Amino acid sequence: MSAEPTPFLEALSLSGARIEATLDRLLGEAALVGEAVRPARLLSAMRHATLGGGKRIRPFLLIEAAKLFGAEGEGVARAAAAVEMLHCYSLVHDDLPQMDDDDLRRGRPTAHRAFDEATAILAGDALLTLAFDTLADPATHADGAIRAELVLRLARASGLGGMVGGQMLDLTAEGRWSADGRPLALPDAEIRRLQAMKTGALLRFPLEAGAILAGADGDAVARLGRFGAIVGLAFQIADDLLDVEASAEALGKATGKDAARGKGTLVSLHGVAAMKAELDRLVVAAQSELAPYGAAAETLLEAARFIADRRS
Amino acid sequence: MSAEPTPFLEALSLSGARIEATLDRLLGEAALVGEAVRPARLLSAMRHATLGGGKRIRPFLLIEAAKLFGAEGEGVARAAAAVEMLHCYSLVHDDLPQMDDDDLRRGRPTAHRAFDEATAILAGDALLTLAFDTLADPATHADGAIRAELVLRLARASGLGGMVGGQMLDLTAEGRWSADGRPLALPDAEIRRLQAMKTGALLRFPLEAGAILAGADGDAVARLGRFGAIVGLAFQIADDLLDVEASAEALGKATGKDAARGKGTLVSLHGVAAMKAELDRLVVAAQSELAPYGAAAETLLEAARFIADRRS
Repeated sequence: MSAEPTPFLEALSLSGARIEATLDRLLGEAALVGEAVRPARLLSAMRHATLGGGKRIRPFLLIEAAKLFGAEGEGVARAAAAVEMLHCYSLVHDDLPQMDDDDLRRGRPTAHRAFDEATAILAGDALLTLAFDTLADPATHADGAIRAELVLRLARASGLGGMVGGQMLDLTAEGRWSADGRPLALPDAEIRRLQAMKTGALLRFPLEAGAILAGADGDAVARLGRFGAIVGLAFQIADDLLDVEASAEALGKATGKDAARGKGTLVSLHGVAAMKAELDRLVVAAQSELAPYGAAAETLLEAARFIADRRS
Repeated sequence: MSAEPTPFLEALSLSGARIEATLDRLLGEAALVGEAVRPARLLSAMRHATLGGGKRIRPFLLIEAAKLFGAEGEGVARAAAAVEMLHCYSLVHDDLPQMDDDDLRRGRPTAHRAFDEATAILAGDALLTLAFDTLADPATHADGAIRAELVLRLARASGLGGMVGGQMLDLTAEGRWSADGRPLALPDAEIRRLQAMKTGALLRFPLEAGAILAGADGDAVARLGRFGAIVGLAFQIADDLLDVEASAEALGKATGKDAARGKGTLVSLHGVAAMKAELDRLVVAAQSELAPYGAAAETLLEAARFIADRRS
């Protein structure tokens, strides 16, 4: 992989800066609604958790999926910011000592280290709530049925049957050790289902959401959803490879934690070479899913390749 | 106060049993959506936090507000369950050791005591998410704009500018002590604003939501909202009186904690007698707000009196 900026990396970086600006603006507006007092410390923690870094992959996917069907502008930017708020809340709660116990995130102290645990829990709660607030607001789309559908799909992607459920399965799957001290790995199918819930659902959502916002038909939404599921799996495999191969410095967070916890991943189950081969197959599958859109889907395909190949 | 069941108490109890059944059903349905694995421990914690007790005041208010404007049935029951899910999530997170550190709730161990802290945090997150899922689902109302409006109002009532913001203000207001060891009380206006956010907003929401579900006009929604704000204030004053006067046994949770924490309440600021007099004035104000509806609003007024007079 070359470190030189490609047109894709430049587009991702430019998009990230715009998303940052939208998040900044929406957090500011949320602090001004109604006559409520501003809990300054809570707002600071929400800003700490949301602003200042991250590749903004999920909002990028939403914006590009909407663009594929001809939609752009304020509503798309708001929905993109909403999915990033939801992602950031999940990082804040997952980083807590009671869960993954991480001190470092994007090269900075995690929210509970920069503030305190109570503030981090509440900042996560408020970000989760603000994500739904943002989607349900008429400024996101003129059609209430579309706003409600986005809320429903985000809730399904992120709740009991999605991200939160996957995190719970992950916590209960960790640290199962055999009598002679080897980690007891989950079988392949269980790892895949767990990961589809924990990280896959929230990578699939923005692709469906972008299509829905643009008024695409049901077949197109389903196709983007299948593409999203492939991207989600590739993302997780690349993440697990990074945990084995990358340095903490490059990643901005601790590495090698999966093995230390006896946490089964597809990489620990099948080995690095096998999973790199699967990544290549996933990129091909992603291409074939978007083939009907021809060159118009090129940015989404580059995003899929970027996600599969990323080194940080 | 007589302990004999009045027709109102019987109606509240019957309604509570129905809400319990709806919550039970919705939690069961949520566990079956899609192909996701069931995280059994998470679902158990969600059920522990949601089922088995509580007066179900918020859903009762929603159902009665909807009835006042002629709506009842499945959609109303779902929205009522959603506001209770949101309330229950807030109890789970507020009870955590990092926040109010309570071991007992409704006479049973709190979620983090019955399970563990990680599970309690995730169960709260999943309940919050399921509340929005439930409101956004077409089964709640045929009109998407109404579903989106309910989501938006619940998010505003419960997020940064509402309940979560109020909890944050409450945490930062606790334990301010003067140099000679006396608690430094917040001024009257600050306590009222904090409480309007922390508990008032989620008592006001169901009254507005019931009217909106029933298709009431904007003036009626605003009137029910004003009634809800009065009820919210009365609820909090009654709660603070209970913390001073009731036994832990009657309440099913620890009492006398406000004073021990140096937490300012209107009761600690103005005294028991003054706040009992204010409760009486609030009941009169509530009556005058609903006067246009005559006898049809009698159950809502009884609810307001019950909230002001409750002894547990």
